Amino acid sequence: MQRTIGIIMNGVTGRMGTNQHLIRSVLAIRDHGGLPLANGETLMPDPVLVGRNENKLARLAAAHNLSRYTTDLDAALSDPANEIYFDSTLTQLRAEGVKRAIAAGKAVYCEKPTAGTTDEALELYTLAREAGVKHGVVQDKLWLPGMLKLKYLRDSGFFGRLIAARMEFGYWVFDGFHQPANRPSWNYRKEDGGGLFLDMFPHWRYLVDNLFGPVSAISSVGAVTIPERVDENGERYRSTAEDSAHLTLELENGMFVQINCSWQSRVRREEILQVQVDGTDGSAVAGLRDARIQDEAATPKPIWNPDIPNPIDFYEGWTLLPDRDPSKNAFLAQWELFLRHCAEDAPFPWDLLEGAKGVQLAELGLQSRRERRWVEVPALK
Amino acid sequence: MQRTIGIIMNGVTGRMGTNQHLIRSVLAIRDHGGLPLANGETLMPDPVLVGRNENKLARLAAAHNLSRYTTDLDAALSDPANEIYFDSTLTQLRAEGVKRAIAAGKAVYCEKPTAGTTDEALELYTLAREAGVKHGVVQDKLWLPGMLKLKYLRDSGFFGRLIAARMEFGYWVFDGFHQPANRPSWNYRKEDGGGLFLDMFPHWRYLVDNLFGPVSAISSVGAVTIPERVDENGERYRSTAEDSAHLTLELENGMFVQINCSWQSRVRREEILQVQVDGTDGSAVAGLRDARIQDEAATPKPIWNPDIPNPIDFYEGWTLLPDRDPSKNAFLAQWELFLRHCAEDAPFPWDLLEGAKGVQLAELGLQSRRERRWVEVPALK
Amino acid sequence: MQRTIGIIMNGVTGRMGTNQHLIRSVLAIRDHGGLPLANGETLMPDPVLVGRNENKLARLAAAHNLSRYTTDLDAALSDPANEIYFDSTLTQLRAEGVKRAIAAGKAVYCEKPTAGTTDEALELYTLAREAGVKHGVVQDKLWLPGMLKLKYLRDSGFFGRLIAARMEFGYWVFDGFHQPANRPSWNYRKEDGGGLFLDMFPHWRYLVDNLFGPVSAISSVGAVTIPERVDENGERYRSTAEDSAHLTLELENGMFVQINCSWQSRVRREEILQVQVDGTDGSAVAGLRDARIQDEAATPKPIWNPDIPNPIDFYEGWTLLPDRDPSKNAFLAQWELFLRHCAEDAPFPWDLLEGAKGVQLAELGLQSRRERRWVEVPALK
Amino acid sequence: MQRTIGIIMNGVTGRMGTNQHLIRSVLAIRDHGGLPLANGETLMPDPVLVGRNENKLARLAAAHNLSRYTTDLDAALSDPANEIYFDSTLTQLRAEGVKRAIAAGKAVYCEKPTAGTTDEALELYTLAREAGVKHGVVQDKLWLPGMLKLKYLRDSGFFGRLIAARMEFGYWVFDGFHQPANRPSWNYRKEDGGGLFLDMFPHWRYLVDNLFGPVSAISSVGAVTIPERVDENGERYRSTAEDSAHLTLELENGMFVQINCSWQSRVRREEILQVQVDGTDGSAVAGLRDARIQDEAATPKPIWNPDIPNPIDFYEGWTLLPDRDPSKNAFLAQWELFLRHCAEDAPFPWDLLEGAKGVQLAELGLQSRRERRWVEVPALK
Repeated sequence: MQRTIGIIMNGVTGRMGTNQHLIRSVLAIRDHGGLPLANGETLMPDPVLVGRNENKLARLAAAHNLSRYTTDLDAALSDPANEIYFDSTLTQLRAEGVKRAIAAGKAVYCEKPTAGTTDEALELYTLAREAGVKHGVVQDKLWLPGMLKLKYLRDSGFFGRLIAARMEFGYWVFDGFHQPANRPSWNYRKEDGGGLFLDMFPHWRYLVDNLFGPVSAISSVGAVTIPERVDENGERYRSTAEDSAHLTLELENGMFVQINCSWQSRVRREEILQVQVDGTDGSAVAGLRDARIQDEAATPKPIWNPDIPNPIDFYEGWTLLPDRDPSKNAFLAQWELFLRHCAEDAPFPWDLLEGAKGVQLAELGLQSRRERRWVEVPALK
Repeated sequence: MQRTIGIIMNGVTGRMGTNQHLIRSVLAIRDHGGLPLANGETLMPDPVLVGRNENKLARLAAAHNLSRYTTDLDAALSDPANEIYFDSTLTQLRAEGVKRAIAAGKAVYCEKPTAGTTDEALELYTLAREAGVKHGVVQDKLWLPGMLKLKYLRDSGFFGRLIAARMEFGYWVFDGFHQPANRPSWNYRKEDGGGLFLDMFPHWRYLVDNLFGPVSAISSVGAVTIPERVDENGERYRSTAEDSAHLTLELENGMFVQINCSWQSRVRREEILQVQVDGTDGSAVAGLRDARIQDEAATPKPIWNPDIPNPIDFYEGWTLLPDRDPSKNAFLAQWELFLRHCAEDAPFPWDLLEGAKGVQLAELGLQSRRERRWVEVPALK
Repeated sequence: MQRTIGIIMNGVTGRMGTNQHLIRSVLAIRDHGGLPLANGETLMPDPVLVGRNENKLARLAAAHNLSRYTTDLDAALSDPANEIYFDSTLTQLRAEGVKRAIAAGKAVYCEKPTAGTTDEALELYTLAREAGVKHGVVQDKLWLPGMLKLKYLRDSGFFGRLIAARMEFGYWVFDGFHQPANRPSWNYRKEDGGGLFLDMFPHWRYLVDNLFGPVSAISSVGAVTIPERVDENGERYRSTAEDSAHLTLELENGMFVQINCSWQSRVRREEILQVQVDGTDGSAVAGLRDARIQDEAATPKPIWNPDIPNPIDFYEGWTLLPDRDPSKNAFLAQWELFLRHCAEDAPFPWDLLEGAKGVQLAELGLQSRRERRWVEVPALK
Repeated sequence: MQRTIGIIMNGVTGRMGTNQHLIRSVLAIRDHGGLPLANGETLMPDPVLVGRNENKLARLAAAHNLSRYTTDLDAALSDPANEIYFDSTLTQLRAEGVKRAIAAGKAVYCEKPTAGTTDEALELYTLAREAGVKHGVVQDKLWLPGMLKLKYLRDSGFFGRLIAARMEFGYWVFDGFHQPANRPSWNYRKEDGGGLFLDMFPHWRYLVDNLFGPVSAISSVGAVTIPERVDENGERYRSTAEDSAHLTLELENGMFVQINCSWQSRVRREEILQVQVDGTDGSAVAGLRDARIQDEAATPKPIWNPDIPNPIDFYEGWTLLPDRDPSKNAFLAQWELFLRHCAEDAPFPWDLLEGAKGVQLAELGLQSRRERRWVEVPALK
């Protein structure tokens, strides 16, 4: 038996909303005949596109044979068939839409950061909890094949006790003078919402919390290393938002996680994101898709002797993990879990409180940078 | 014409003193027929071994056909033919020997750390300067082939403006339970002088100061990640000295240098020490011996798309620098410079003040760790 | 301080006795300046060569600058300076020499098989125990680097629970018709003491007992697959001793170990001896020197589909263990342990009882073959 | 001229029946325009699907544009156009269907094992012979490219006289705790028909009989090495059926064939199934598709010396056989032979008697395991 569930998709005319949430997630589920539920039913998502620009909505709907779109959010919210509200609007606009959806009794699912400040993010969580609606926040990187492999290694006991982790993230973004830039210029203007902290720290928060343990303190610095760039129109502009950040996290279990993020570093590693995890019994180096392991038994015993060429090839002794099960788009994987959460009450721990934690880490990271000291990360409630 | 210069070598019965300073430096110069000077003369070093254990001195002298050794430092200092005093004794003993040598008017050359505290290290500098003797401190890593290549790249303008640098140092040290440990157990006991800060931070200070610019502030943490180990006699012991440290340095030029050192991390990179330097025009990744570069022109333009296997091999696009000139043992290279400094007044900027800066960074690093904040690094005078 | 220990070496004019026991073990210890003991003393072995052929003894002694050799075993035994009796004579002669040595109160060390029957082997053990002399049996393969790596993997918990093991041993021995044979012809004549069972089963016994657990039952078959061969003199002869054997061992822990040995099988694997060990958490494939591991996490998930070429390279996903510590000749390693056992009472569990177990497995293996059934392996006492 | 032959396909809604027998065999012959016969005619198979679940039959028929399906076996048998009855139902149901087909005078072709006991399997053979109908049993692995290459090597005299053979079969099946299992859970429950003996021993019987010679005795053991697993629904269950077996077969020609099968062994070889055959003149190692040979002339002469790294690369000296002729799906190949057997009386030796031999080996293998002894394999008649 098939059951239809209406989903208000607000702000999916943007690149991420269109590609990841609409096409690769919601429409992909439709194309595969709906989502099979535990009770044997099939759940069929029925999106209604919501936005401010009717032309864009019409074009997007037409391109995907969708009949439902509107610029009138309240109208969409008033239709009881629309049980879910999804939000991938600009961060500044998010809170308002989410609040209206909560007030209308909808289940709420939204992009990160859920708000610009921790207080605001917590308010959304409190409202949703008091209203008794279901809620969730996109934490897609948890479902990247490489991160799933890390989780598997941790759960199956491969690491023994965790010792430390390091992450390298980023790639070289051209300044636009001789090569067009490969990221939008607003990312480098604080006045337009740019900056690494609010953009990336929420990702680090849920990755670290979920893979290694709860974060208890942060020390971070950031820098604007390229002061002048050329924008999409060939105009020079001043960079006001940091393009690189170094942070160290202390976890409740005593472990440190050191993270370097930079849009101005040339990559010499397997993937754009690389995480090294060292444990007493083994280590892993994982990227977006792949992971390599080195067991204690295969760990070499080097000798410091710079007078001879290094006799050990440190790239040997690592084993690439096989792709044993088919991988799924990370956004789709989380959408399926949220739909099951709504339809059959399956567990979904990645809620608005978890989303608020991401905003909190960004906020405290900026405070640490400003005050030049470690800042404790208190529990949110 | 040949000129002989007597060198008091105090504390060279230890592994480092014997191998690097006596055999590969001073005796190597003798074996090559002495050191040619600018004026056409040849300088022939004539070592006298000094130590506390006469048996050990006798054996070491015999093994290398040396006639001069003594346990009486004052006697050695009173011989005017001995123009240079070299010290690689235990850190705790260093100050006393150096002071007596200065008092005797000898040129002084010694291992790092020059003392256990910045004040003590500064006192040695002040005494030497007031006595008007020549002085120097071992900073061997500056002459590693890989570091010389970085210096060459910087001096030749390859990097453009420096943006940031990162260093990874260390390898996996076994805990001794199933595999004998590959470092001595005292390294992991604070009560025996172990610990990464005093051992390694002096190296980072001179490398960063010399390669990237003067350090102005430090933030650092350290950890004992393996609480129990097995020593050389098969006995269990508690580790009390940190086996890993994460530090971030801020330089006067505004650049950040992020450094991870760990004896509990499995290596997936070319060499035990790896330095990545990013500049506006190019980047380099260097180790003890090799360096690889990526010019702005060869920098790839990646796209974030975890749904497909990474289409770019980030290891391509880097070019290995050729070994164009024969490399020399790093200790020998600095010895030759110090001998020329003594014999013909050639410049030698790596003096006791520079040595004191290394001690200072270790001391402030420990303070930063304790106070959980950034600590400024004031100029020493 | 140095202490000399006389060693009667009986039967070392044979290839194995000369090369492994005399040259690479006893003389090697002398060449390295003796064996350091725990109390700081140095133990210096002083061999006296014993045999039946005075000419051979004289030649061997001369070749190695040894002054002591004799054909009179009793004379050697009567010298109290000779504390150890070593025996690598023919198996048929072994018991008599060992008994005389025990009667003379000497510590006894001998090659395997210790006797031709279990009863006789047990008698040697009983005599030695009653006489209160120290005793040991050569079990060299335990100290092969590859087997030490297996032991390390087991001890460090790499395997999890052991599931099963397989061993392949042997190589192609030419029959002598078109290529000279690469093993002596007596090996293929039962009447001359040839045959795989008595030769190799003692090795399997101690390897399995020590690496995987005590053997509790055996099922084995053997075959003469090449009925006619050509000997060292170009004469044809009939093979009467089996050249191949298949055995399955059941262990007390319930695990099976399957072993194929053949001198008529062409090798397609890394080494002459290959042991595969499967455990719940990981597997290893080891040879004489190398070992490769595959962790559960790196284990591929194949699909049976013979319609397409195999999509998985099963040789990937295995990691070669590094040679972390210098390896030592396996015979020398055991000699050092036996000498320490004699000189300072260090533990040495590989005694004549263990040697008798090897003979027992060969005997029961032949019984299993004859009676075409599993035979229990009772405890020896 | 074209001739149509009706084929009752009973039980092809299962995975193997659908994929291998219906799609890749019978329908593939139709898609290629029928099977050319010796007399110039073309034989066109016309399947009628039979089963117990009408919905499944309807879906399968629709998916392949087939009009004929029914749940009424008798009706299908009563149609004289249906000359062949094929059976791939569950083993427990097979005998009944086959008997009804024989009674109806149909040619019978069926999957292995043909029955649960040797007596029952023999009864089918006797009934078919007495009824004078044609009959055959699926023995697909004989037509695997790798096995065809072994047969070619044997027939062309490459091996000389056969000496011995070994087979390794299986791969690692995950227990389901941290990785979903890669075989259905019923395989590990005896009460649900699981277990290696009845599943795999029929394959070994026909492979050995056909490639090396008639089997005359068996010795086998089996084990449940993983006592607890997780099933398709995430529920834990106890394994009651053996997951591994070691067997040794003795052939009438005196040769031994040693076989290890395990679902709990990690694979380090070219393919899932690997057969090594040693002969006096040469050896081969074959898998599902490939085979490699080593001629006597290319056989290396190794020396036992564990003191040095193995100087011989034993993987060299083997030559990969070329794929000279296009390979065909193994099931299709046998189907074509059976159709020719029915249509033009071409020879087809793989009949119900041969099928009974497979059941016999499984039964005697279980007896050998129980009685812990060799069991003779008597001729069936």
